[in-house]
Amino acid sequence: MSDIPDIVIGRLPIYLRELKRLAQEENKLNTSSHELGKRLGISSAQIRKDLSHFGEFGKQGTGYHIKYLIEKLQEILHLTHEWPVALVGAGYLGHALANYAGFQPRGFRIKWVFDSDPAKIGDKIGDLTIQSISELKETISRESVKMAIIAIPISVVQDITDTLVEGGVKAILSYVPVHLDVPEDVQVSYSDPVTQMQRMTFYLE
Amino acid sequence: MSDIPDIVIGRLPIYLRELKRLAQEENKLNTSSHELGKRLGISSAQIRKDLSHFGEFGKQGTGYHIKYLIEKLQEILHLTHEWPVALVGAGYLGHALANYAGFQPRGFRIKWVFDSDPAKIGDKIGDLTIQSISELKETISRESVKMAIIAIPISVVQDITDTLVEGGVKAILSYVPVHLDVPEDVQVSYSDPVTQMQRMTFYLE
Repeated sequence: MSDIPDIVIGRLPIYLRELKRLAQEENKLNTSSHELGKRLGISSAQIRKDLSHFGEFGKQGTGYHIKYLIEKLQEILHLTHEWPVALVGAGYLGHALANYAGFQPRGFRIKWVFDSDPAKIGDKIGDLTIQSISELKETISRESVKMAIIAIPISVVQDITDTLVEGGVKAILSYVPVHLDVPEDVQVSYSDPVTQMQRMTFYLE
Repeated sequence: MSDIPDIVIGRLPIYLRELKRLAQEENKLNTSSHELGKRLGISSAQIRKDLSHFGEFGKQGTGYHIKYLIEKLQEILHLTHEWPVALVGAGYLGHALANYAGFQPRGFRIKWVFDSDPAKIGDKIGDLTIQSISELKETISRESVKMAIIAIPISVVQDITDTLVEGGVKAILSYVPVHLDVPEDVQVSYSDPVTQMQRMTFYLE
């Protein structure tokens, strides 16, 4: 593991995303921690401190060279090659994820989709063909898949997670609203709209 | 605003979710910070400290009375009434969200869906009828809607956000991968699978 706080790591993809917008949509060559901070609602001091964990990227006066900083962040986050991803669950959310155009430009590609429903197996989502969940372990193991996204019912999620881990997956993005048990060397990131909304209602009257 | 760190507030919905599982699926009456922590991968000391911000909920020996703690957490998070929610965007993700059965048992109900595509307006998603985006501001203002979920293209997201804020919305869950400008009294929570995945690849080889 790393000595750098995970909260810092969590901000790097946000910086990377905004830098790409500056470069691609506004054709900018340089930026500053001040400009970046203003666009992200983060203090410029925080941005400078976060980046200082990884080296000296800015220059007094000219700030950050955007293209260089993008490259460096991609190296730090291990995005210099595309990550193939297995998607488990071809329900409404699985379909939305399989159709999402935002993965590939940012380093990921869903290459396999699995479901347990015999009625869905063999169906296409875009270029992908839904495979049987019974092929999950063998496929990810054979293809050395390290990342998976799961959008499946709670009742089966720990079993599927165990299968993914046995097959060699090391990072799981879970849309299932329950904590998963995984070995220490496996990352899990959770997405649950309700916990996000409940966190906000605390602040509302 | 509150003196309690937002990171603490962010964990309360996770505690609430697990307590409900303990009560509803395992028919348990009591639990302990130790048991809860073990199920959530959070230290028992952290749980006790988080809850101590709001009062004294546990008893030496018997631990927490689950039903009571659920009620208290729902009060703290303002979940004693159902929050009506406006959904903006009826694409793949919008459809998945509109069809998601997980909102209502946990305090939220999507009651309106808006889209800008004339071909979609009038279509049904379950019981909901897709309305024109041109009706957004008037509807949320008339119905005093405080919460919205947005699943729309980046190009229109700030304009739609401004409309939501003008209409009186105070909390937005955004699936759009860009930072939004909102007044200080408006909450925004972001869901971007790619930033979550990029945070995990940092730890992979």
